[in-house]
Formats: sequence, structure tokens, C-alpha cells
Amino acid sequence: MSLKVGLGNRSYPIHIGHDLLSDTNQLKNAITSQQVMVVTNKTIADIYLQPLLNKLSEIGIKTLDTCILPDGESYKTFDTVNQIFTALLEKGHNRQTQLVALGGGVIGDMTGFAAATYQRGVDFVQIPTTLLSQVDSSVGGKTGVNHPLGKNMIGAFYQPKSVLIDTKSLETLPEREISAGMAEVVKYALLGDESFLGWIEAHAEKLMSLDGPSISHAIARSCRMKAEIVAEDERESGVRALLNLGHTFGHAVESHLGYGQWLHGEAVGLGLLMAADLSWRLGYIEQAEVKRIEILLEALKLPTVIPAEMTEEHFMSYMARDKKVVHQRLRFILLKSVGDAFIADDVPLETLKETLNAQKFGA
Amino acid sequence: MSLKVGLGNRSYPIHIGHDLLSDTNQLKNAITSQQVMVVTNKTIADIYLQPLLNKLSEIGIKTLDTCILPDGESYKTFDTVNQIFTALLEKGHNRQTQLVALGGGVIGDMTGFAAATYQRGVDFVQIPTTLLSQVDSSVGGKTGVNHPLGKNMIGAFYQPKSVLIDTKSLETLPEREISAGMAEVVKYALLGDESFLGWIEAHAEKLMSLDGPSISHAIARSCRMKAEIVAEDERESGVRALLNLGHTFGHAVESHLGYGQWLHGEAVGLGLLMAADLSWRLGYIEQAEVKRIEILLEALKLPTVIPAEMTEEHFMSYMARDKKVVHQRLRFILLKSVGDAFIADDVPLETLKETLNAQKFGA
Repeated sequence: MSLKVGLGNRSYPIHIGHDLLSDTNQLKNAITSQQVMVVTNKTIADIYLQPLLNKLSEIGIKTLDTCILPDGESYKTFDTVNQIFTALLEKGHNRQTQLVALGGGVIGDMTGFAAATYQRGVDFVQIPTTLLSQVDSSVGGKTGVNHPLGKNMIGAFYQPKSVLIDTKSLETLPEREISAGMAEVVKYALLGDESFLGWIEAHAEKLMSLDGPSISHAIARSCRMKAEIVAEDERESGVRALLNLGHTFGHAVESHLGYGQWLHGEAVGLGLLMAADLSWRLGYIEQAEVKRIEILLEALKLPTVIPAEMTEEHFMSYMARDKKVVHQRLRFILLKSVGDAFIADDVPLETLKETLNAQKFGA
Repeated sequence: MSLKVGLGNRSYPIHIGHDLLSDTNQLKNAITSQQVMVVTNKTIADIYLQPLLNKLSEIGIKTLDTCILPDGESYKTFDTVNQIFTALLEKGHNRQTQLVALGGGVIGDMTGFAAATYQRGVDFVQIPTTLLSQVDSSVGGKTGVNHPLGKNMIGAFYQPKSVLIDTKSLETLPEREISAGMAEVVKYALLGDESFLGWIEAHAEKLMSLDGPSISHAIARSCRMKAEIVAEDERESGVRALLNLGHTFGHAVESHLGYGQWLHGEAVGLGLLMAADLSWRLGYIEQAEVKRIEILLEALKLPTVIPAEMTEEHFMSYMARDKKVVHQRLRFILLKSVGDAFIADDVPLETLKETLNAQKFGA
């Protein structure tokens, strides 16, 4: 199935299907340059690179190069992106080249940033291979890298030419990565669609076992919600900020533990629960709803307690640096109700600290 | 005087005047955030930073930080831009911050790139202090840094919110920098306005001695030509390429000698002459016109011979990596006549080599 991110002359399609990458017509429509560099990491390359290169040769691409990066969020740095630039320059790639991001969110973010900035901008195509990147980072044009002082602090808004989601690639993922992806799926439900939350609860087991129709529906529903929000607010001046539900807390956890200790989705899962807890403490949602979210996260095998080594002070120092700080005030995305998120600029520090110190959420 | 770069909702004004930076109203209109970081280099900081900071305090800017970078094209690297990111993060600057580029083209290009990519984009204002940056790089939104394998290979198209050109700042420049800036002024005349070329010839001496009305006219005419071309073709898919007249040759000289040996404008000046020589060899312009250009460059104290250590092979290897390579063919901007440049994709290699080996141009 296909859907569209509507952004005027920068609109692009998202194609979702099982074994999509074997479909030469799909590849031919997506990859339009005769000069291509596929960017991936070592882990992905072992499984998917050669079959993809074979297909790309089959559709007649003349200059076909690859750039294989080290695997992991700890390598999401400018130095790693610079490896892409060096490879492109060594092979003589010019402005007509097209980059293909084959991998998870880290590969997509770095390849997108390389595309945004190589010779001031070349085309790129996203082929996300993890559930997390399929439902989140491959759509919407946020690209970039981490800085030692903060996550995603360097980057650009830069849209791909198309996104190809092959659900077959999920079959080789560790279960922990499926859980991490499901955290973002739950996020969409919490921020804008309570009935979708009910559907996820009813299908949690099927989703974790990668039942085909279930996982396709979860991806398509998530991508559609993200596409609608991005079309409305590409550069995050308004409603797009809702997509950060759970992320302010989550980024603090990721930064403190060091990128790569918890998966991004795991940190976001905990962040969702903390946002729900804070929403409850501020009187927006019921105690039982915090519990409901906790139970769902547990069913999806996601962590639901703050790492023992993290204190209130740790959270506060990371959050002060977060991009979501506006005019020196902490901004949170909270739940007015389940399925209805909003931006809160005026969270009392005392209530925030209760959430940061909670041994148990919603209690 | 003021003119406008017309780019829809990204349009911006260019203000030109003597002692413009003492005018608090101009600064107030240009710098609209309460959170500002001025980026400059050591050389500029000694002369201009404190007066500017005083004025910015006077107009009531609350958070006012500075970032002082090392001086020179050899520092136009991502590592130097990273110093800006680190300073911004250490001082807690968020997406509402505004960067001010105070300096020449290198500072403008790096600050613009930092603005384009810090937290995926913040506003910036250009205050160019060299003639070269006033007539060229501060207008048009090309930002970026060099890569060891090529000049300006990493960057973004990102427009400033406004450009403030204070001609008083030219008074402290070495003569060599005035010459370098004049090379770009001559470029505009050659590519699109023969009568302007006649005006430059008639005012060469006045321009070199920084006669006020003459230099203001030269800057304004150059900016207006650039603004018109950029408005027509922001991302260089067509007519904007004409602004690269002289640059294919010039970049090869800069790259080969190592950035900073010849000033950019000096390399461009030689490049203009080489482009004229090649245009003559291909039958477009008269031999006498090559000579006319050479005489003008000499009057402006610009180099007019290829550095002795550079061979044909050196040029060829640098030009093959240039962004202006399209589908593996060398693209040159040539002169159909003086004041009328065009894009040539089909230059015979033999004729090109004659220009690269010329002991004397137009002969």
C-alpha cells in the first residue's frame, strides 16, 4: 500500500509492503538517478546489501557505490557523516547523485543529513529496515547527528524523494528492536487516536510475533498520522511538537546512559509513561490510565522504571539543554486525555520533580 | 541605500551605508531576537567586536554571547563550525537564537552553515566586513565549509534574515583584500553588464583608493545583479551558475596552492582571465577583449599569470572533482561577448589544454 506526505513540490510517497525490495518496478520508480550511493552499516550490509545491489544493477543503474558505516547510535556523529562525504568525493559523485539510506534511524538520519549538505543538497531515498525507523524517523525529513552536549543538535529539515518500507526486513530483528519500535506506535495512539490504542492493546501479542496484517496496519496507521502532522507543520513551529511526546524524558535517559545503552524506542517508552504520570499529577488524566499505559508497555516488553543511577538532577540538567526549551521554560508534551496530547509551557517545577522521583508511576 | 533579495517568504533586505553599524535603528530592525551570538574571528574582533556589542547592548538584547574563531580559509572546516555549536550549547542557546556573522566570507559561510544546521535551523544576520564578502558571499544563501578533497563540498542553501554592509569597515583592510573584492565586481560586469565594465575601468583608481561614492556604487551594482540572479534561481539549477564565471579555474588554483595562499578573489581574477582566454580560443570574443580584461585586472593589482608550479594535470585533477561537473563532462562559464556569459558543456579538451598551458593569455 502507498500513502503520501503532502508538502507541495516536496511531497513524496511512502510505499509499504512485504518483500517490497524484490519489486524492480518499485525500485525503478523510487531511484531515478543513474548515479547512486547506498549508505548502510555493517550489520545491515551482511543481510540486505547484496540483494539490493543486485536489484539496482538489474534496473540499470550505471554508477553504483556503497558506503558501509559502523553500527550504533554512538556513531551518529559528524565524523561518521564525513565518511559518507569522503566516499562520495573519492568516487567523483556530483550534484546529480542520489543517496539511498538502507538501515535504521541512525543510518537514515545521517544519510539524510549527508544528502542535505553534500554539495548543498542531493536527493535521497529512505529504505528503513527497523520497526522504529519505519514508523518514525524515515518519514518527516528530520535529519542530523548528535553532539557531545546533546542529541540531534546538528541537522536539517530535508525531505526524502520517497520511502520504501519492506516489512520482511523486520523478521531478522531482535525482539528488543520490535519492542522499541512499538513504543513509537503507542506514542501515535496516545497523542491522537484512542481507538488505535485499543487496537494495539488487542493486538499486542500478534504485533510482537510480527503477524503480517497486524504489523502492516500498525506501520501504515503510524505513518499516516505522522504524514498528516508533518504536512501541517514541517518545521515544528506548532503541532509537530506533539510528536515529541515522551521524548523530553527519553532524551535525558539516552544522554545520561550514553547513546546505545537503551534503544531510543525504549527510552521513549519510559518517556511516554513519565509524560502520562505528569499528566495525571497535573489533573489531566486518571490514575487508571497511567496504569493502562504501563500494562501495555509491559505487554510490549518495554522498560517501565527510571534507571536506578538517574537522579532528578540528571534529568534537569539534560532537559535544560533540550531543543524543546523555549525562552528558558521547560516545555512538555502532556496528555489532556488518552488520544489527545497538548503542549504545556507552564509545568510547575514541584510537580515535575514528583514525576522525576517516582518509584512507581501513577501512584 | 537598501535593496531586496526577492525569495517569497524568505526575502530579505541588504542595507548599504557608511558607518551603518553605528545606526541603532538599523541594528534594531535587523536583529530581532533577545538571544544573540556574534560569530567572528580574532582579527575582526580586535577592531569591530566591542563597538558592535556596545550597540547591541544599547538596543536591549538580553542574552549576548560571542564566539571568536581562528582567522583564515584554512580554518573553513567542519571542526571550526563545531566550535560554534559547542559555544551555543554551553551557553544554552535554543531555536529562538539569532546568529550574527561579523567578518569576511569565511566567517559568513561558516556562521550561515551553523545557522542552517544548529537545532535544524536558526536565524542569522550577515555583517560582511571585507569587500569580497560585501559584493558576493554575504548575498545569496550559499553556506558551507571545505572538505580536504574539495572546496565548499559540505554546505546548505540557507538565506540570512538581512545583510548589513558598512563600507567604513573597508578602511582597515589591506590593499590586497580590496583587489580581491574587485575581482568579483569585475565578474558581475563581465557576465552581465558591459557598461558597468566601462564604469569600473574609468573608476579603477578611485575604487582602489576607496572613494566613497565609487565604492558604494560598485557594491550596490554588484549586490543588485547577484540579488536578481539569486531570485531567479536560488538553488543553482540554471542561470545562477553564471556567477561561477572564473571559479572553475580559480578553485583549482586555490585547492592546489592550499587555501589561504592566494586570496579567493585573486584566484577568481585569474580565473576570469582564463575564462576569457578560453572564450577567445573558441571564437566567442576578440583577442583585444582578453587584453582589455588583463589590463583592468592589472590596474586592480590582481595576478594575471598561472602560478609557476601548476601544470595542466593539476588543473584537470581538481576540475574533475568540481561541483560544476555534470554527467562527467566539464562545464565552463564562458563569454559569448563581454557582458554576456553562458554555460558551455562541450568545451573540446584540446582547446581547454591550450588555455591551461598558456604562458600569456590572448596570445
